[in-house]
Order: sequence, then structure tokens, then C-alpha cells
Amino acid sequence: MKTVYFVTGNAGKFREAKAMLEKLDIEVQQIHYEYPEIQSDDLDSIAKYGARDAAMYLKRPVMVEDAGMFISALKGFPGPYSSFTFKCIGNEGILKLMRGVEDRNAQFRSVIGFCEPDQEVITFSGSVEGEISNEPRGKMGFGYDPIFLYQNKTFAQMSIEEKNEVSHRCMALRKFAEWL
Amino acid sequence: MKTVYFVTGNAGKFREAKAMLEKLDIEVQQIHYEYPEIQSDDLDSIAKYGARDAAMYLKRPVMVEDAGMFISALKGFPGPYSSFTFKCIGNEGILKLMRGVEDRNAQFRSVIGFCEPDQEVITFSGSVEGEISNEPRGKMGFGYDPIFLYQNKTFAQMSIEEKNEVSHRCMALRKFAEWL
Repeated sequence: MKTVYFVTGNAGKFREAKAMLEKLDIEVQQIHYEYPEIQSDDLDSIAKYGARDAAMYLKRPVMVEDAGMFISALKGFPGPYSSFTFKCIGNEGILKLMRGVEDRNAQFRSVIGFCEPDQEVITFSGSVEGEISNEPRGKMGFGYDPIFLYQNKTFAQMSIEEKNEVSHRCMALRKFAEWL
Repeated sequence: MKTVYFVTGNAGKFREAKAMLEKLDIEVQQIHYEYPEIQSDDLDSIAKYGARDAAMYLKRPVMVEDAGMFISALKGFPGPYSSFTFKCIGNEGILKLMRGVEDRNAQFRSVIGFCEPDQEVITFSGSVEGEISNEPRGKMGFGYDPIFLYQNKTFAQMSIEEKNEVSHRCMALRKFAEWL
């Protein structure tokens, strides 16, 4: 059985990855280590830099994950800074920015970076297209889920199983598992 | 004459620093090198990490500068991600977020990180208190200057000399020069 160390402080992300990868006979262990997250417009660079740093520091094979919501009409905002933006202005702020905006297309993206010490980082990405709703709907999920519409339901109106079938993160996890 | 290497891709910042520091017999040279900017809620950590990396890589005494606008009612947004946010939603987006908001207090902050190879980073900070205007005013300056009100004038309505007397960046530069 192969073991992968998932470097994250986010218990929800860890649970998702563990459930999915253990079915495929891959053991996942959580490690708390604050690797540097660089400022960059693309998640790929952020995951690469973090995975390389964590593998070097922890001296074992590690995975990191970075995700964000990219709104077309706002030129990709909040993108790589989704988490900070959510803490500051929340879904209310995003809806205010989108008031009167016709093009409501948005995308959730996830990138997983995997690195073994002294090797190159390999990345796996997933994405899902949706729309920004006019008001928050649903109580499940977290973050921007209540305003992210996917086929007439927001992510916060879906059960975990339903969301996992279509989500950006699970798409990236599946690619990673296949490669492993 | 002491020489300091200012690692920045921003010609405007370099000109400001050069003009101020050369009066004090400190030579400033611009170096283009993309040091990693980490994601952090405080500018101090960003400048420290960048200066340490640049000094190690370039093997000489370097300075870096990081700045941002922090709006009280938006919990410090856009803060360390001011530049990305400006590219995406501009002053128009900030004014939309602030529509109907009574507390209009905001702060510009600047942190300079100075590092000599194999030494600790030293930082110098400057800040200026202002308010978010109701509409853009003035043509000078750059970035958020047209919506940052300081004593009834926006930064974009001030000449460079006027702005330099009160600006966050010049306050940090003065502290740095005194220390040098």
C-alpha cells in the first residue's frame, strides 16, 4: 500500500481526499506544515512551489492542493486569493460586485501538486463551469458554494456525494489517483 | 557612498526611492529579479520573505517594497492583494463594494525589507490614513490614488511633491534612510 502525505490545515479537504484515495488502496496521512504560498495568477505555480518546499522540508512524498473561484466578468477575480477575499467580503460582497452584471459565468479550479524529495513536481488539475446565482441558496458545503450554480442547483444545495461527482477537487484527485 | 540594490519591476517606485535616497548620499540601483511573494495577511512577512530570498540569490544587500490599501469596513480588503484586485475590478469595483457603506476609513501601508546576505531582514513601515471617496477624482498618481481621500483631496489630485510629503511609501523610505 502506497502512502501519500497531504500537507493541509483544512480537515474537509483531507477527508475528501482520504475517502477517495483509500478506495484505490492509497493511504493518505495529514501533515500540518505551513509551506509558503506564493502570489501568482495561476494555481499551478502556487501548488508547484508549495509541493517542492514541503517535500524538501519534510523529506517524504507530499501532496498539496490549491483551489479558487474565477469569475469571467471580473477578469478571474477572486481567483488565487479566493480564501482571503471570502474572509473579507464574503458571498455578500461577490453578489454586490455582480449586481447588474449579465455575464455570470464562473469556474471553480483545483490543482494538486505532488512531489517526492529531489524530484520534479507533478500537477493534476480539475475544473467545473457554473454561474454566480442572484442570491445565496443552500446550507451545505462551504465558502462560495451557496452562490455557485451548477445546473440549477448551487453546490450548497447538493449532498457531499452529489458534489463530489462533479467538483473540481474530485476531478483533480481522480487524475492524481490514476497516475499513482 | 553606500550602494543599495532595489529589487523591483516598478519604475515609479524606483524613481521615488532613488530621488529620496540619493539626497542622503545613498546610491540606489534597480535590479529585476522575480523573488517569490508569499500569500500573507501582513505586508511585513511578504517583504521579509522576499528580501531574504533576493539577498541569498543575488548575493548583495537588497531592498524590496510591498504596499497595499486596507479598507476598515471590508476587514482590510484588498490589503496584500491590492495589485491583483486592482487589475480585476479596478476603482469601479471598490466603489461598488463601498456603495451605501458609512464607515469609509482606509489606510495605505508600505513595508520596506532590507537584507544583507547571511543576515536577518530588517523592515521599515509607513502608513497614511484616509477615506474612500464617493467617486474617482484627479488624474495623477496610479492605482487606487483617485479614490483615496486625504484631507479633502485624493492622492490623484496631488502633485508628486505633495503626495511624497504624506505618503506611506515615503514614510517607510525616510525611516530606512535614517537607519542606513
